[in-house]
Amino acid sequence: MNSSITPKELRMRIRKGEHTGNTSGYCQGFVQCNVVILPEDWAFEFMRFCHLNPKPCPLIGVSDMPGSKALPSLGEDIDICRDIPSYRVYVNGELVDSVPDVSDFWRDDLIAFAIGCSFSFEEALISNGLEIRNISEGKNVPMYRTSIQTTPVGRFHGSMVCSMRPFVAADAIRAVQICSRFPSVHGAPVHIGNPDLIGIADLAKPDYGDPVQVREGEEPVFWACGVTPQAVVEQSKPPFCIAQGPGDMLVTDIKNNKFSVI
Amino acid sequence: MNSSITPKELRMRIRKGEHTGNTSGYCQGFVQCNVVILPEDWAFEFMRFCHLNPKPCPLIGVSDMPGSKALPSLGEDIDICRDIPSYRVYVNGELVDSVPDVSDFWRDDLIAFAIGCSFSFEEALISNGLEIRNISEGKNVPMYRTSIQTTPVGRFHGSMVCSMRPFVAADAIRAVQICSRFPSVHGAPVHIGNPDLIGIADLAKPDYGDPVQVREGEEPVFWACGVTPQAVVEQSKPPFCIAQGPGDMLVTDIKNNKFSVI
Repeated sequence: MNSSITPKELRMRIRKGEHTGNTSGYCQGFVQCNVVILPEDWAFEFMRFCHLNPKPCPLIGVSDMPGSKALPSLGEDIDICRDIPSYRVYVNGELVDSVPDVSDFWRDDLIAFAIGCSFSFEEALISNGLEIRNISEGKNVPMYRTSIQTTPVGRFHGSMVCSMRPFVAADAIRAVQICSRFPSVHGAPVHIGNPDLIGIADLAKPDYGDPVQVREGEEPVFWACGVTPQAVVEQSKPPFCIAQGPGDMLVTDIKNNKFSVI
Repeated sequence: MNSSITPKELRMRIRKGEHTGNTSGYCQGFVQCNVVILPEDWAFEFMRFCHLNPKPCPLIGVSDMPGSKALPSLGEDIDICRDIPSYRVYVNGELVDSVPDVSDFWRDDLIAFAIGCSFSFEEALISNGLEIRNISEGKNVPMYRTSIQTTPVGRFHGSMVCSMRPFVAADAIRAVQICSRFPSVHGAPVHIGNPDLIGIADLAKPDYGDPVQVREGEEPVFWACGVTPQAVVEQSKPPFCIAQGPGDMLVTDIKNNKFSVI
């Protein structure tokens, strides 16, 4: 791992096929994003969905115009078709392909949405001395489908996916304080404690990612997760959609601290 | 003035013509909004404009679907055509009419945007013991066209309008802290001090509202203002637009404190 590489350098390596796989741990200090790409006739509805569901879908950037592959507000010379390590292609809500480049799938009516990612707040928690269990265990964070419903907008609807990190109560409270400063990257947690209350039957069996140990005296703390839009796409079935592969994010030129509200 | 009236009661009085004029001071504790109504083929571009310009255009609500007069996320039984004391109608960026009811202008392709308003942060400043000069002098807040450019999106572009409130430095610093907690209602100030630096030649001659006294030892503090979208509409010239009259806001059922990020 080379964490001293700049975001633009990493994007160019990804574009050339010199970097594959997870972007976790790269370009520390910079915002990484989930990406959802939709046809224009579904895009305005999706933007309104994000606006009413800011915790799972905190919107960081949107294409300037349909068909544009650039995201100038997020970084220099971004090619949204090639600068992410892997993409998932959905047709009518079904995953039909996983590819490292979506140039061949590109259409003039597509709009890209960049959505905040937990890597940013994990960095803020670590810099406050908190231990992130999935990081100390070298795993992907456990994520669960929950009974928390998103606010539907037009054709978009579905339940929220949450990530979980265990903390002792004092650290859970500190995590609420720290993450409240960063609403653009999921913000404060949505639940603390009993997983049953949000429809999770077994913490040891996450729907995405890996299980982590919850120790005696710790509470599970749940954050709205950027996987939610992909779950919503699966349920809402737009005719066409592209998203990033799990853990394979768009690395932007924006510093995490720029999104601190105070 | 009857500040104990509920937002819904005030909206009904406005709808029946029993309340006319300014909503300032009514329904304290509840969010009031600027409103911009645009045809659907300009609406997605405007929503992206708001997203890239969150300080002058903090988006609080959007119509569920084109042509809908309700805004269920903002309040019970809202009729966006009748629940604001006065409306301004723009054709090709020119103000052509000022009316108390826009039902006759309504079209099936219109989308309403509700944008945060300074009344919310003025209330937070007062509850922290700060004196708001325009309130203590019983005037409309002075507003100025500035040289600060908004980030253009598609056909929308123009310079930012700022409101000004004078404070001694310690209070200006406290105001930055307080307002940073409320990004949905313009957030922290955009400028403190020398008005020349943001293109304002004479504080005594505001472009909108009334001048207020700036005392010896005070600094003018400037906030991005919700009049900006109307100035942008005048410059960007959409074929049709409706906005609220000055000081005549949409009063919502949402508590100001709900928008505090921490």
